[in-house]
Amino acid sequence: MIPAYIVAIGDELLYGQTLNTNAYSLSKMLTDVGFKVIKHISIADERQAILDTFEEMSKVAKIVLITGGLGPTKDDITKKTFAEYFNVGMRRDEVVLKHIENLFSSRGRMMTDLNKSQADVPTNCTVIHNMYGTAPGMWFEKNGCIFVSMPGVPYETENIMSNEVIPRLLDFFKPPFIVHKKVQTIGVPESILAQTIEDWENDLPSHVRLAYLPHLGKVTLRLTSEGDDKEKIDEELNNQVKKVIPLIEKYVYGFDDETIEGKVADLLKEKNLTLGIAESCTGGYVARTFTQHEGASAFFEGGIIAYSNDVKIKILGVKLDTIIKYGSVSEQTALEMAEGIRRTLGTKIGIATTGVAGTGGGTPEKPVGTVWIAYSDENETVAKTYQLTKNRNLNIQLSTNAVLNLLRKKLIEK
Amino acid sequence: MIPAYIVAIGDELLYGQTLNTNAYSLSKMLTDVGFKVIKHISIADERQAILDTFEEMSKVAKIVLITGGLGPTKDDITKKTFAEYFNVGMRRDEVVLKHIENLFSSRGRMMTDLNKSQADVPTNCTVIHNMYGTAPGMWFEKNGCIFVSMPGVPYETENIMSNEVIPRLLDFFKPPFIVHKKVQTIGVPESILAQTIEDWENDLPSHVRLAYLPHLGKVTLRLTSEGDDKEKIDEELNNQVKKVIPLIEKYVYGFDDETIEGKVADLLKEKNLTLGIAESCTGGYVARTFTQHEGASAFFEGGIIAYSNDVKIKILGVKLDTIIKYGSVSEQTALEMAEGIRRTLGTKIGIATTGVAGTGGGTPEKPVGTVWIAYSDENETVAKTYQLTKNRNLNIQLSTNAVLNLLRKKLIEK
Repeated sequence: MIPAYIVAIGDELLYGQTLNTNAYSLSKMLTDVGFKVIKHISIADERQAILDTFEEMSKVAKIVLITGGLGPTKDDITKKTFAEYFNVGMRRDEVVLKHIENLFSSRGRMMTDLNKSQADVPTNCTVIHNMYGTAPGMWFEKNGCIFVSMPGVPYETENIMSNEVIPRLLDFFKPPFIVHKKVQTIGVPESILAQTIEDWENDLPSHVRLAYLPHLGKVTLRLTSEGDDKEKIDEELNNQVKKVIPLIEKYVYGFDDETIEGKVADLLKEKNLTLGIAESCTGGYVARTFTQHEGASAFFEGGIIAYSNDVKIKILGVKLDTIIKYGSVSEQTALEMAEGIRRTLGTKIGIATTGVAGTGGGTPEKPVGTVWIAYSDENETVAKTYQLTKNRNLNIQLSTNAVLNLLRKKLIEK
Repeated sequence: MIPAYIVAIGDELLYGQTLNTNAYSLSKMLTDVGFKVIKHISIADERQAILDTFEEMSKVAKIVLITGGLGPTKDDITKKTFAEYFNVGMRRDEVVLKHIENLFSSRGRMMTDLNKSQADVPTNCTVIHNMYGTAPGMWFEKNGCIFVSMPGVPYETENIMSNEVIPRLLDFFKPPFIVHKKVQTIGVPESILAQTIEDWENDLPSHVRLAYLPHLGKVTLRLTSEGDDKEKIDEELNNQVKKVIPLIEKYVYGFDDETIEGKVADLLKEKNLTLGIAESCTGGYVARTFTQHEGASAFFEGGIIAYSNDVKIKILGVKLDTIIKYGSVSEQTALEMAEGIRRTLGTKIGIATTGVAGTGGGTPEKPVGTVWIAYSDENETVAKTYQLTKNRNLNIQLSTNAVLNLLRKKLIEK
């Protein structure tokens, strides 16, 4: 087991002004190749906090990944503290300087002395190229422990990690394999799932760990094991997955890193179907869920965010009578929206959402969290209702997952 | 200074399978009322890791907030380890049990023995009500240090914090005030900003801290000071803000927690204007940015996500000739999209995005990251172009901020 620690430096993290996504993405990358992440730590841009943390790490860690504190402005003291910890001086790296100059000229921007100082590094480090940014990565070794410093900007650091740091770490440590197998479920609460697979869970060998990871109406089952023989571990975990699937088949939408929207996208492409999306309460979130991934244009024609009743009527063709009689949050409106988007955009499939997302807008008959979702194809148009939570953004996300799951079920039948 | 530590428990955090948003939101809440967050720590669901962390915390912390590890399933051992650390037994809390029963019956779900066990708590804790979930919060005191355990589910924990934990902590510690003043800028790189305000920054008194927080084409300037006299600190920081504003006025869109979309929403409401959004490369993200906040319906009529050229032509009225001659990513298409959405939905203002988000789809003439944004009202229709990055999601977010900033500038002129 090669223990790895992830340290984030930045006052903004401790003030709650920036979300630390680096700990998340770096953990995933380390875990995927068999390193064991033991701890995440976030500390302030303060010399003593940094020195104390390095000292603590050097006793227990083999790998310490540090993010943040490398900007050009005066609140950043990481590099100086690094030099102090390793008891070395600073030097200006000419390759980095040239790279910074190129970045600035390609963006047509003026370079300041502050920007030039980003090419200064402690003399004992190996510079790691940062393709997308001006702050270089830095690789240090001390008593068999590797310290790697990277910028706080997530996409710069993710790029440095996958292109440079992971290959170097594998080369240096040659770690054992950690294997995860995940079963992705939707539409079943964690406790019911646990009860359903209780016997299987009790029969798991002790070296296989099981975790339940609930998230927005979905629960991921994660099996983990480790060792030197990747094939053997793979086989054992695959056999366990094969045993559990029959017990929970109707809830399972995918495996490992498959997403519900990815699964739906695959089904649409496989069956050569096009999709149109009509959104009211989700306000663009369903479309965004698909379009965040490359390749959505293969099946996604477009969407209409019908926030006002006027747009529901004029663009989607929902009947004014329907809205007057049943209201904009109703089965009838949801059905007409799903039919309407299919007709308006000329797609094979249409889906729709309408609801009271909140925080305000609820009534005794239709409280906050009342949501209707609908599906339409050339043979049928169906709607379902949910009573969700009092939380606006949660309702938007849960409605999105509900309509994706309805779409998935219908596509499997087709 | 009352030092606070935030501890997250959960293998899923260290495997990089769940993003730790609790550390972020809890830090913000603690900071806002004057506690000083010193460190975030994330550790595994392991007895020894939990005990070691509690031991470390008890030496340096006055407040330890713990999230996670309270689910009903077998991977959760936090409560047992708590009881071990405090050297007490467990008891079943009847009020919590009743609450769990009510939650289950209102959702029409079956209750299992696992669910009932969520009402078990260490005997020395004060139970804190969890309105939205089945795992109760727990408040412990040991040698003047407060330990609070809360669930991993973000909206449950945020609710427990603001309704229960923050009032109790204020009552217990009566902390000094920490005041932050933020100036929100857009459209200027961090280094240029730093150079522009260098003299002002050098003149800041030493007890006032300045930080630059860059994020997606925006940079937040944050001034921080603390003490017992809130009014005096407020006044000093406000005076510093007044001094810096004239130097950077054209980049400033707001203060403190104002967002660019919130500012635009305020301007639209103030001027009684309605907005329609036509999106291609941003795929729903611009609409979602507005609709995540309550009250968007006051100005936002709707949007059309014109992902295919067909939808651009049929629904938005972009000319086929325009697309053939200039391409779908072009100034002309962007202009026609912005005019088209205004006409189609009958809104006062229309905005549009079209671009090559990536990762694929680039050409030598229009590489990945080429984006056109446009604005249209009854007097003018204008477009701007950007050459952004190679990263798809970054391009989507940067395009969104660019079109919001264009809209903001035009609304200020109106």
